[in-house]
This record gives sequence, structure tokens and C-alpha cells, in this order.
Amino acid sequence: MRVYDLIYKKRQGEALEREEIKFLIDGYTDGAIPDYQMAAWAMAVFFQGMNNREIADLTMAMVESGEKIDLSPIKGFKVDKHSSGGVGDTTTLVLAPLVSAAGVPVAKLSGRGLGHTGGTIDKLESIPGFRTDLSLAEFIDNVNEIGVAVAGQTADLTPADKKLYSLRDVTATVDSIPLIASSIMSKKIAGGADGIVLDVKTGDGAFMEKAEDAERLARTMVEIGKHLERKTIAVITDMSQPLGYAIGNALEVREAIETLRGRGPADLTELSLLLGANMLILAGRVGDFQEGYDLLQELLENGKALEQLARLIRAQGGDAGVIEDDNKLPQARYTCPVLAEEEGYIAAIKTRELGLLSVEIGAGRARKDDIIDPAVGFVLEKKVGDRVLPGETLLTIHANKEDLEGIRERVRKAFLITEEKPEIPTLILTTIK
Amino acid sequence: MRVYDLIYKKRQGEALEREEIKFLIDGYTDGAIPDYQMAAWAMAVFFQGMNNREIADLTMAMVESGEKIDLSPIKGFKVDKHSSGGVGDTTTLVLAPLVSAAGVPVAKLSGRGLGHTGGTIDKLESIPGFRTDLSLAEFIDNVNEIGVAVAGQTADLTPADKKLYSLRDVTATVDSIPLIASSIMSKKIAGGADGIVLDVKTGDGAFMEKAEDAERLARTMVEIGKHLERKTIAVITDMSQPLGYAIGNALEVREAIETLRGRGPADLTELSLLLGANMLILAGRVGDFQEGYDLLQELLENGKALEQLARLIRAQGGDAGVIEDDNKLPQARYTCPVLAEEEGYIAAIKTRELGLLSVEIGAGRARKDDIIDPAVGFVLEKKVGDRVLPGETLLTIHANKEDLEGIRERVRKAFLITEEKPEIPTLILTTIK
Repeated sequence: MRVYDLIYKKRQGEALEREEIKFLIDGYTDGAIPDYQMAAWAMAVFFQGMNNREIADLTMAMVESGEKIDLSPIKGFKVDKHSSGGVGDTTTLVLAPLVSAAGVPVAKLSGRGLGHTGGTIDKLESIPGFRTDLSLAEFIDNVNEIGVAVAGQTADLTPADKKLYSLRDVTATVDSIPLIASSIMSKKIAGGADGIVLDVKTGDGAFMEKAEDAERLARTMVEIGKHLERKTIAVITDMSQPLGYAIGNALEVREAIETLRGRGPADLTELSLLLGANMLILAGRVGDFQEGYDLLQELLENGKALEQLARLIRAQGGDAGVIEDDNKLPQARYTCPVLAEEEGYIAAIKTRELGLLSVEIGAGRARKDDIIDPAVGFVLEKKVGDRVLPGETLLTIHANKEDLEGIRERVRKAFLITEEKPEIPTLILTTIK
Repeated sequence: MRVYDLIYKKRQGEALEREEIKFLIDGYTDGAIPDYQMAAWAMAVFFQGMNNREIADLTMAMVESGEKIDLSPIKGFKVDKHSSGGVGDTTTLVLAPLVSAAGVPVAKLSGRGLGHTGGTIDKLESIPGFRTDLSLAEFIDNVNEIGVAVAGQTADLTPADKKLYSLRDVTATVDSIPLIASSIMSKKIAGGADGIVLDVKTGDGAFMEKAEDAERLARTMVEIGKHLERKTIAVITDMSQPLGYAIGNALEVREAIETLRGRGPADLTELSLLLGANMLILAGRVGDFQEGYDLLQELLENGKALEQLARLIRAQGGDAGVIEDDNKLPQARYTCPVLAEEEGYIAAIKTRELGLLSVEIGAGRARKDDIIDPAVGFVLEKKVGDRVLPGETLLTIHANKEDLEGIRERVRKAFLITEEKPEIPTLILTTIK
């Protein structure tokens, strides 16, 4: 087998065989195939695509390239949830306690923030003492004992995907559906999931801005799931404005606590119930969606979900006192409201821009080795469709530096105000099974 | 400027600006831009193409990447000829003496064989003593003294093209018209040509098998010539069967001598007159094609062209005695006829296959550092349209090894014999100015 022939074959629009894909991925992982051939192949894939069988084979070749987490010591059907990334997306913090409170084990590996989007691990680390670097044994023990654990990835999962992603990142081949789909699915499968609920976001704050691209990606991943016998459900959800009101690590933890108390923002609550109900369906815990939805709503109302959060925090070394006293979470020294200058309706929010601005004040990393500030971020007061008068607060900046003039102005410009009442974006667009 | 953005821009089908192309080529040449980014860009070019302005800018960026040959010490308009490569393509050996005999200086830099095709430098080196490694001063002096010189490339012309070609060769991005066109034209322009006659071959033995691809390439190069103010004429010619009868270095030298004597194969003679007449037109030596054609024909008939070959050989240290006594050329130890087994007409000849078989018996290089055997090769007895009876010779193998059974069988299979008389392929398909 020659790499050249495989690049050529893909360039001509033909499908590669399983062994050919495995040859490419194994050779690339162990260094036998150089970056330049893989870059040419990735660009050929960008233009010619891959069929679902190829994508499934690529996914499994990446799974096989490294360690795999064996979750079999945990009893029950293990469902993972994946979000394609957004701004103020606090759902994992709500879902992990909520779904486990329903009796379905949640063994969740999460990531850190990327670009303008936040990451669950960074958010959890804003809880004093909370450890995300669990060993595999601790991780499994915790799930067996209390039903839930959320940790960073420590094992060397899917090294092929890591290497290929770094290459795609510098060769303009990131936004290829087959490559994105196989990258996501390989990580979930190597992470030991039996079933997967995918939250594919679309809109200005998402990586897939267009709804049709998000849908293509979602359908592709559901198909891969079928090929690989992992039950998979995808929902396409709106990220044309931030989810909930908080953007920033400790601020989002506080919002998650409120949501688990049954007093969270409507959109975050709704999305958590939707994703959670689908997780219960996959796990066989409920017979249909409504049953799952109602069960989870009850767990929010009766305090069981919040109790489960307390257990999760304690089990991972954190101070569960943050639940009753949010002053125990890191607090920013300065708060600074951003005021509206016109009267009208919020017609749109530049969500990606807000995400990037939150990174700029320290809530995320501009470079890999930057240290994030858990206390800082934004809290929105107005969202799309809300009426606003001059002088009313659009958003409050929480910061640890005093000079916020430039940021304030740019935050203000992220809110588009019009005279006419706009249509409010639909939160849940499609569910694909 | 970021390489990533330039790859992305091309991937999206946009045209790059001149400075962007120069940034890419300069950065790649000096090593600042890595192979993997260039490979992704080349694949994006394969799919999205380039407009003629971009191709001209790419050509000049490659010209500027290295040394340029200054032919200004040679008086007159310097016309170069380039063939896209074929099997048994002996035209340069005929054209260089012929055109210079008409009073137009021929300062020709030539290459070696590539893949299944032969190269002029290899052919000339089969003449005992013939030196192709002239210094630039010798090269120019020879042209000024006798009107002609043919040498290998010694200066470091178009290093960007060399580097990019090597990369394309292993990333399945060779057959991209913009990249081929700029590669050829950059070498010709860096070689100092004022005008260029291009022989773009098509058919089984050519790199561009399809006539429409050859025509697109030819049109592209003529357009680049216009952009860069180098008069350029392209002819599209048939390579669905070998040109002339000889394939192999010394064998082709012998055939060139016969052609210069006015007794060469009809197709080789015709193509030489066509290309030569176009060279005379570009140089302003004649007013129209017919005048050039007639003049060159006269030079074949009156022996002036052959005299010019003798001068060329002597000036470059070779033994001009080969002209009168072809036993002075290397001779293979064995000759072995390949006989027809059926009665009928030659309907087609697998020309690329014959080229590859000639490489296998030593007439070309399978690897870069292989040493070629100047004596070996094939001499065809039959060409397309010829009638053949069982037992008649199709082709004679000249070899320096005895065991030719396998080769003989494969050579036989390269001749397709049918009952019906086939159409004879047209030699000259189109001229593009």
C-alpha cells in the first residue's frame, strides 16, 4: 500500500477501504507517514468527503490508535453527552448531577475551553478544592459509589485524532464534516460510552454557524453511531445567543446551582431537560421522552438533583458549601454594568464576540498555557427579544482589572438594538436519531 | 500575512494576490513555510484552480526564487522549445542544428529522462565525448561562435519549482494545470528565453493523456506567455504512438542524424519542421509559416542542418565521426526481433508501456541514481495503420542482456492488431498562439 495512491484515490472521489484508512491512521500516528501527505489527504477529504462507512472506519482507526477507557466495572448503560461548544453552555454542570440523580450512571470526561467557547473542566475547577485529575480507578469508584464523576482526560485517548487535529488546525482543513464527526465520535467511543447524546450547536456562537451544516454534522454522527453500534441521538440547538445569562467559570457554576435548584434560566433548564431525557431514553431508564422529561423536572423541584451535585463536589475534594453560600466561589473585584444607549428591542447578540471578549478579560485562554481567572466573566441582563430603555443594564462585567472602558464599549456593540420586536430564536431545532 | 489564510482563501475558490503568491513561494523556498501547509495549498489549487493572472504571478515568483540565466550576450531573439515529454521524442536533436542552420541562435537547456519518457541530455551523452555540463560562459561562447549549444541545467534555476515539484510528486498534486503550466514556464523564463515554442503532447505516451487536458495546458501556457511578455506558441501533437521508430538514447541519435540527412521518419521530420518554422516566426527570421517550413526543408536537403550538427558535436567535445559511421555510437550486444503472431493492422501501440519497458532494459532510470545504458532500446518496424503478417517483425529489441523472453512477450502485447484498418492518428492537432 502506498500513501500516494490513497491520497490520489480520495482526490478522485473514491471511497477508501477500511484497511486503507487504518494504514493511513496507524502510519500517521507512529510517524511513518509525514505531515505533508496527511495534509494533502485531509484537503482531498475536504473537497471529496467520505461516505458513512469510511467515517466509521476512520473513527475506529482513531479509537484504536491509543488507550481506551474500560467502563465495564461500572454497572449499567453508560451514556455520554457531547456539546459541539458554545458560549455560556453550562449544561454538563446541570446534567451530570441531574441524570445521575435519576439512577443512570454518569461517567463524564470533559474538556477545557477552546477559542471563544468555555469548557466544563475549567468551570468545575472554580469550585475551591475540586479535583478534575482523577485516576481511572478513582473515577470508576466514584461512579460506583455516588453515581457520578466528571474528570479531565488523563489517559492517552485517540492520539491519532490529536495529531490530525493539530495538523488540520494549520492547514485550513478543520471544517470538514467527516473529519469533525470522526474526531468527536472517536473521543466518545475511546472514552467508553455505550450511548451518546450529541448537542450540536448552530448560530453565531457555534463552530457550525449554519443550521444546515450543523444538521449534516449531526446526521453524520448519528450514522457513525449506527455503524459502530453505539446508540446515538443528536439535537441541534441554538447558539445565536449565549445559553443562560452567565459567561465565565464561577459565574456559570453559580448559574448551574440555581438551575439545579429549579430556579435557573428557562433556556438552560429546557435544554438540560431535553438532553437529560434523551440520555435516560438511551440508558433504558424511561420508556419515552415525556416520562424522562417529567422525571428530571421532578428531581429539580424536589432537591434531589442539587443533593447529587453536593455529593459530586465532595467526592472530588471540593467545598460543597458553595451551594448554600456562593460567596465561597471566586469573586471578581470589580463589577461594571454596560448600559443601553437606545430604546428598543434586543434583536441579536454577537455571541462569538462576547465569548472572545470574555477570553480577553481572563475567563478563557488566548494561548494554551495561559492561566484562566475563574472569577471573571459576564452576566447578561437582557437577551434577544427583551425590551430595553436607555440607561438599563444590558450586561454586567465581572473583572479583576479596573480599566474596562474598551471592553465595555465592545460589549455594548455586541448588542444589536432595533425598534421592531424581533423573532425570538427557537432553542431546540431538530432531534435526529 | 498568514499561510493559513492563504490556504483557506484558495480552498474557498478565491484568487490570491501577487504579494500573497510571492509570500507563499518565498517562504516555502527559504523553509519558513513547512511542507504540510504547501501540500494543503497545492491540493486546494488542484480543486479550485488559479486564474491566468495568478498563474503568471506564480511563474514569476518561482523565476525570482533562484538564479536566472542572462542570454543577453547572445545577439538576436532567443527562442526556446519545450516538449511536455514523450516516447521516442527526438525533436530537439533535430531542431537545435536545424533552426541554428537557419541563422537563429539556439541556446538550449535540456533535461534528462523522467518516468517513461526520454530526455535530450541523456540522448546527447550517448555520443562519445559529448559534454553537456558546459559552464554558462562556454554555453554562451558556443552559441556566439557556431549558433548553437545544448546543455544540462547547471545554474540553480527555479529552486522553488524543484522543491514544490518534489512535494507534488508525493502528494498526488502533479496533474494540476496551473501547477504544471507555471512549472514549465518558470524554467523557460529563468533559462533566458525571449520566445517559447511549446510541444504539448497528448495520447497514451504523454503525461496529458486527454487532448482536452493538453489543450487546456497549452492555452494556459500561451496566456502566461502573454501576461509575462514572452512570445509563446503551443502546438498539440499526438503521442498515442512513439514518434519516429527509435526509442533509446543512441538509437534516437542515429534517427536524428538520418532525419537531418533528409531521410528520417515522416512524423519526426514533419514535427521538426512545424516546431522549427514556429521558432523562426517567433525570432522574426521569416514572415510566415510556409516560408519557415520551406527554408528548413531546404536546410535538410542541402546538408546544412547536418553540418550544423557536426559543429555542435565538435564544439561540445564529441566525436562527430558518428555522423558518417554510426558504429561509433554505442551498440547493444544483442538484438532480438519481436514477431507478430496474427494477421491484420496495427490498431494501437501502448506507448507508455513501451516507454516503461525501455526503462526496464536500461534505456532510462527507474530511480534517480540509476545509470542508463546508452546503447539499448527499441526500434519499431510497424506503426499504427501498418499491415502485418504472422512472423513479421513488429519491433527489434536492442539489449545488453540475453534473457529477453519476458520483455519480448510484453512488447508483443503492446501492439494491438485488428482485422479492420484503423484510422491513423493525426500528428499535429492544433496550434495555439
